[in-house]
Amino acid sequence: MNSLAEPVARVSIDLGPRSYDILIGSGLLDAPASWSDLPDATTAAIVTDSNVAPLYAGRLKASLSAKYPKTTLIQLPSGEAHKDWAAMNSIFDALLGSGCDRKTLLFALGGGVVGDVTGFAAACYMRGVAYVQIPTTLLAQVDSSVGGKTAINHALGKNMIGAFYQPLRVVADIDTLRSLPKREVAAGLAEVIKYAPIADASFLGWLEEHLDELLALDASALQTAVRRSCEIKAIVVGRDEREEGLRAILNFGHTFGHAIETGLGHGQWLHGEAVGCGMVMAADLSARLGLIDAGYASRLKALIAAAGLPVRGPDSLKVDRYLELMRMDKKAHGGEIRFVVLEAVGRAGVRTAPDGLVTQVIEANSA
Amino acid sequence: MNSLAEPVARVSIDLGPRSYDILIGSGLLDAPASWSDLPDATTAAIVTDSNVAPLYAGRLKASLSAKYPKTTLIQLPSGEAHKDWAAMNSIFDALLGSGCDRKTLLFALGGGVVGDVTGFAAACYMRGVAYVQIPTTLLAQVDSSVGGKTAINHALGKNMIGAFYQPLRVVADIDTLRSLPKREVAAGLAEVIKYAPIADASFLGWLEEHLDELLALDASALQTAVRRSCEIKAIVVGRDEREEGLRAILNFGHTFGHAIETGLGHGQWLHGEAVGCGMVMAADLSARLGLIDAGYASRLKALIAAAGLPVRGPDSLKVDRYLELMRMDKKAHGGEIRFVVLEAVGRAGVRTAPDGLVTQVIEANSA
Repeated sequence: MNSLAEPVARVSIDLGPRSYDILIGSGLLDAPASWSDLPDATTAAIVTDSNVAPLYAGRLKASLSAKYPKTTLIQLPSGEAHKDWAAMNSIFDALLGSGCDRKTLLFALGGGVVGDVTGFAAACYMRGVAYVQIPTTLLAQVDSSVGGKTAINHALGKNMIGAFYQPLRVVADIDTLRSLPKREVAAGLAEVIKYAPIADASFLGWLEEHLDELLALDASALQTAVRRSCEIKAIVVGRDEREEGLRAILNFGHTFGHAIETGLGHGQWLHGEAVGCGMVMAADLSARLGLIDAGYASRLKALIAAAGLPVRGPDSLKVDRYLELMRMDKKAHGGEIRFVVLEAVGRAGVRTAPDGLVTQVIEANSA
Repeated sequence: MNSLAEPVARVSIDLGPRSYDILIGSGLLDAPASWSDLPDATTAAIVTDSNVAPLYAGRLKASLSAKYPKTTLIQLPSGEAHKDWAAMNSIFDALLGSGCDRKTLLFALGGGVVGDVTGFAAACYMRGVAYVQIPTTLLAQVDSSVGGKTAINHALGKNMIGAFYQPLRVVADIDTLRSLPKREVAAGLAEVIKYAPIADASFLGWLEEHLDELLALDASALQTAVRRSCEIKAIVVGRDEREEGLRAILNFGHTFGHAIETGLGHGQWLHGEAVGCGMVMAADLSARLGLIDAGYASRLKALIAAAGLPVRGPDSLKVDRYLELMRMDKKAHGGEIRFVVLEAVGRAGVRTAPDGLVTQVIEANSA
């Protein structure tokens, strides 16, 4: 427990009957108050992975026990390679095998993969049961656990199969971030940094000022960064739950980034690393389209590099393969690639761009 | 084309932003007007099975061509044994392989299995694309294509994995029923008959009067039966889209019926056959609970038998196995089985019943 802990922050996502809160603070995992007002359930099923289980599963089970006397622990293999139907089906096997009914509550304890697979499993099990996100990585706390996008991967593309399905609550215990390897912290910072150029010009300055504290896992700085990220995501998701317009801006850097992840094979670069590099490319594209100053793109690139993220695409991935992969992006319409670009400092939009210009961007920003 | 065709009937399902119409009539499959006001799409994907494709896929493709110049045909293996993830995934493979994006429209052409798998695939593909149901069996026209319940089976239970996901439209061309084997017609009549005891006392008399015409596939009688069935289903689904209460009454006969289907292994009895026999058991249970006269239960049983459906459970299935399977039913809560019973003639509700009474019902109604 952090003796200098800030009070627990609460960010609300306003989606009518599907509204919910994100709790952000220290010690939340062990606090029965984190769950006491959730609905009753016949069984609480904790879904986690082989990395996270030894660290936190026992503590979560103890913390839930006052509210849910019966808990089932479901452990998935860890890693993006297991964000697939086999993992989903192992959840279904366990739920059906232990007689879990429609009043079962799932608790997704882990990073983005656990959250995405568990959320999609909750969406599909008996046509939908409730679930709670307990993200234990920075990336999951600031991005994937919030907003109800759930999915598994398909051989032909990342996150191609899934559902919009909102959790009942997100509980982000920032103490869990202390167990993260440095590389995962940097990957999470990519999604934190993302919010500045697309929605909050002043947040970029705050990040430049507090980057060292964030990299040192200072609790107060982390709580502020997670809270501000969730606030921005809450506004965007509240306006466009099903990604019919505005929400696409949250994919800034992701069109290039997904191409890098899929092109190299999942597991080579972390998602956040690919997004970091993808944001450099997307900012460069925005500058070449005349939307922002080259100076702002450079400033963003410097922050991404200082966070320990790659700023050049992998040597092995060629332009044609980028274009091929980006044409399968979910934002594409009729084979035309749509990029999230910066339309000004702190404002993003979705545009098409000539293949020639995209080629220049990829070549200028590859190793 | 039927020269004595009735005008096209239109039944509306009122679900706010997810409202849609069911069109019921002759010649709808070939009529461009059936699709002309649907949204534009980059690609129309027709999903069907190996039985239905040779009969209707070419005609549907021709009929859609005025609206959708580009169509993709996806053919699934036929039968309940293929209502599984492999079938879903073959749809995803085909959609991704032909570059189908979020604006793709799926057309489910076939019976209940094709409709359920295609609807669930539409719910999951890129987190949701639109789809149209074109049911070609009586069972699908009066039940499974209407109301947005989609699912695949799991080894431990039928329809355990799925979504509530409404179609854009249902187009029920009653001419397609003429290609049905007699056994499938009878199975479909089980779901038609179901609507009378649960919601419309007078419909039972109409069915008794017109059963011979229905069995002879008379177009006018079929259209009336499909329309009345859809009207009742539309009212129930409009009040309880996600089966939180009232909608459960549509499962009259299904708790016993699913146990028969799963207990024998899928494919032994048709779904409608199991439901027919399940309704006999559920009506008997209602009578033994003192809710309805034994005479009404007998009248219902006589109609089910006259439709060519089994009215006695299979010899090989024992009471303990029924109870075990019924405890995994999606309506069960905390291991307690909940039965849809008749609370009066034309009115149904959900109740628990003592295991001893359920045992009597199964034993009295088994071969």
